[in-house]
Amino acid sequence: MAVALMSVALAVAVHGAARRQAETTVIIGGTVVTMDGERRVIEHGAVAIQGERIVAVGEAEAIAASHPSATRIDATGHVVMPGLVNTHGHAPMVLYRGLADDMALMTWLEQYIFPAEAKTVSPEFVRVGTSLAALEMIESGTTTFADMYYFEEEIAAAARAAGLRGVLGQTIIQFPVADAKTWDEGLARAEAFIAAWKDDPLVTPAYAPHSMYTLDATMLRGVRASADRTGAPVMIHLSETKVENDGSMTAHGMSPTAWLDSLGFLKPGTLGAHGVWLSADDMHTLSVRGVALSHNPESNMKLASGASAVTDWRAAGIAAGIGTDGAASNNDLDMFEAMRLASFLAKLSTGDPSALPAGDALEMATIGGARALGLAAHTGSLEPGKLADVIVVDMTRAGQTPVYNVVSHLVYATRGSDVRDVWVHGRALMRDRQVLTLDREAVLAAARTMQQQVRAAVER
Amino acid sequence: MAVALMSVALAVAVHGAARRQAETTVIIGGTVVTMDGERRVIEHGAVAIQGERIVAVGEAEAIAASHPSATRIDATGHVVMPGLVNTHGHAPMVLYRGLADDMALMTWLEQYIFPAEAKTVSPEFVRVGTSLAALEMIESGTTTFADMYYFEEEIAAAARAAGLRGVLGQTIIQFPVADAKTWDEGLARAEAFIAAWKDDPLVTPAYAPHSMYTLDATMLRGVRASADRTGAPVMIHLSETKVENDGSMTAHGMSPTAWLDSLGFLKPGTLGAHGVWLSADDMHTLSVRGVALSHNPESNMKLASGASAVTDWRAAGIAAGIGTDGAASNNDLDMFEAMRLASFLAKLSTGDPSALPAGDALEMATIGGARALGLAAHTGSLEPGKLADVIVVDMTRAGQTPVYNVVSHLVYATRGSDVRDVWVHGRALMRDRQVLTLDREAVLAAARTMQQQVRAAVER
Repeated sequence: MAVALMSVALAVAVHGAARRQAETTVIIGGTVVTMDGERRVIEHGAVAIQGERIVAVGEAEAIAASHPSATRIDATGHVVMPGLVNTHGHAPMVLYRGLADDMALMTWLEQYIFPAEAKTVSPEFVRVGTSLAALEMIESGTTTFADMYYFEEEIAAAARAAGLRGVLGQTIIQFPVADAKTWDEGLARAEAFIAAWKDDPLVTPAYAPHSMYTLDATMLRGVRASADRTGAPVMIHLSETKVENDGSMTAHGMSPTAWLDSLGFLKPGTLGAHGVWLSADDMHTLSVRGVALSHNPESNMKLASGASAVTDWRAAGIAAGIGTDGAASNNDLDMFEAMRLASFLAKLSTGDPSALPAGDALEMATIGGARALGLAAHTGSLEPGKLADVIVVDMTRAGQTPVYNVVSHLVYATRGSDVRDVWVHGRALMRDRQVLTLDREAVLAAARTMQQQVRAAVER
Repeated sequence: MAVALMSVALAVAVHGAARRQAETTVIIGGTVVTMDGERRVIEHGAVAIQGERIVAVGEAEAIAASHPSATRIDATGHVVMPGLVNTHGHAPMVLYRGLADDMALMTWLEQYIFPAEAKTVSPEFVRVGTSLAALEMIESGTTTFADMYYFEEEIAAAARAAGLRGVLGQTIIQFPVADAKTWDEGLARAEAFIAAWKDDPLVTPAYAPHSMYTLDATMLRGVRASADRTGAPVMIHLSETKVENDGSMTAHGMSPTAWLDSLGFLKPGTLGAHGVWLSADDMHTLSVRGVALSHNPESNMKLASGASAVTDWRAAGIAAGIGTDGAASNNDLDMFEAMRLASFLAKLSTGDPSALPAGDALEMATIGGARALGLAAHTGSLEPGKLADVIVVDMTRAGQTPVYNVVSHLVYATRGSDVRDVWVHGRALMRDRQVLTLDREAVLAAARTMQQQVRAAVER
């Protein structure tokens, strides 16, 4: 049934794309923050979109002259920039947002999250949750998201319907979970998911082995062998907490990174989430192996996990993006706040107010994140030939006034609610703050209905 | 001229208050977060306002029955709570927002902020800047703000016109500044300001001796003696940086707090801003002397000043609020983000995810801040008899859905842009996101004009 619906959705999307092929849209008059190789900022610029691709980026007058019959979208006084790339999260967990805060990790997990997941995670739950997450992501300027959860094919379908780009990982874990009784059932699910979705224009299906402490050597080798066959990306939680690192030293006499490397697990196409407790040797290993990292400053602060050494990651040459983590541990999916916190936390933890300056944080949240997810050839910057993942950010709010430097403002003063328009793959997902691909009230109503089940599950 | 205008403004305000006396407004149907002594949260509640005061807080049905002819404002699905109290800032510095970021403190101060201030601070500058700051504060739910700047009488006039409550401190500093050539000229300005404004219903005039490193013992004793005569509050930067602490050890052989105490400077009615480098002895001293503190997590992170031990402050019995600091070092005045960061930073710096839980952060941003500013009898909570400083917060955004616990959401998921309505002293300053007391476009245009002067001053 889901597959049948999917085929229809794909056919409609392909047809739509063909129909749009001839249409050109020019977003004109704003300050274009390209995030290209030279980090060009074009003061009175324009971006031309044809079909699913960007066909021109430059001065407003030149683009207007070369695309005389294009549909024009005025961005005067605003910023036009690449959509944000969220490199780590668990979309459906928005349904647990604020369910349990201010408690030790183990209490949170064992008394709230695990029982709630055991009783409530279902295909419907992840569909409803992903639609809610998609609404929040679109409303705050995220165009690509990485995900690690259960029933990932449902997440893929919901993300696709919303029009978002995603690198979506099916969870593989050693204990019984909602969609698999054993780890190899999870792996089989991942392989089926990858086979079904591997040619999708928006969804990159992936493996999400949970972590080195919830999978043993055999399981991790099994995932690695499968990924070697399919070539699909692999995402794993890595050195998030000191407990994880200490456990690895006790069990294996080496760090999580060193142990994973000893299993041959670390290869290009792998992304580690968090990396709070990485040593210099670990960073060297990850760099040499071509493994990317996702920095999650808000989750790491809120759960008291620690402060990742992102400036060291970057110095080591590791491809690094920013993530929000799931909304159960953040408690939102606003990538503007996440990049602000990435910069703030880098400054605090190094004692250097020039650490991770605004331009670097913005890079991590756009092209850097795309690179970490293996999508840099397609998204993350505004360049002719790339897929049109573009947002327009309103810079006229009192809290954004005056503007001396747009890059600084995007990181230190902008919030998700300032995003006015969003395109992904050339399709408009939001115009003038109105999301076009989701029925906002229906999504919120479904989420509130699902909330009753969650509350009942936790209280029981 | 300014005084004449002021008298007219006061007369109009007094007349308006008298006219409103008979009118009652009931904000009904929302979840009322009182922040009273029992931290009562009333699920289907109401708040009745008559003139400038709250006259009833309780269940919706009961309030509706006892105020049958009141004007009703529907708050169904929203939160009704006390307006936020920003305990430290420099309002006009919004005009330097993003002027200089990501640099060492001394570079920032010496190459950007001081030259810009020397060339641009004027009565007009602070008027324009305060109006812009007021617009931002109203739009993000702040109803009371503390301020330390120059030409403070202009700030008072602009805040009053906008309808905000303020504890406003005239700066006293040892070197020549825009409004005073010497420290005693600054003190004389402060005394005149206090005499002129001491009976104002919204503005509490105060002294703002800059810091223990920009004033010597004679000057600090002079400020103290004057404050003893007038009874006006005193606000001072205190142990913000390690440099300040080290300098104090070198110069005086003791900490800034110990030195100020040795001068007899520390008394009730005094507030120290930042307090990042306070020792346990310092905290004990501040507690015994009845000195309050303002915690500024965003500024302290962005400038890499360090992490204040707020949980220790609270354990020591110190009245503590939260502040944004000036927008040149933050870069916004959003108190929702400030309280979120206060909680995040406390968790990170203590390694304890239960440190400064949501309810405590919310307390610091409301009644705790009011206590720190000496205003707890009048504002900071929703209780009959208190002045009506009330906000309504929209909780229906996707990023706020679902709601399990409103207090957790207010701290971890709400942003300033979710605030729908604002009342201060019973006067509606914003309804349905429309600010009623300021001409938004005129304020933004004036700010952009002033920006040209600032840019020219820095570039010259």
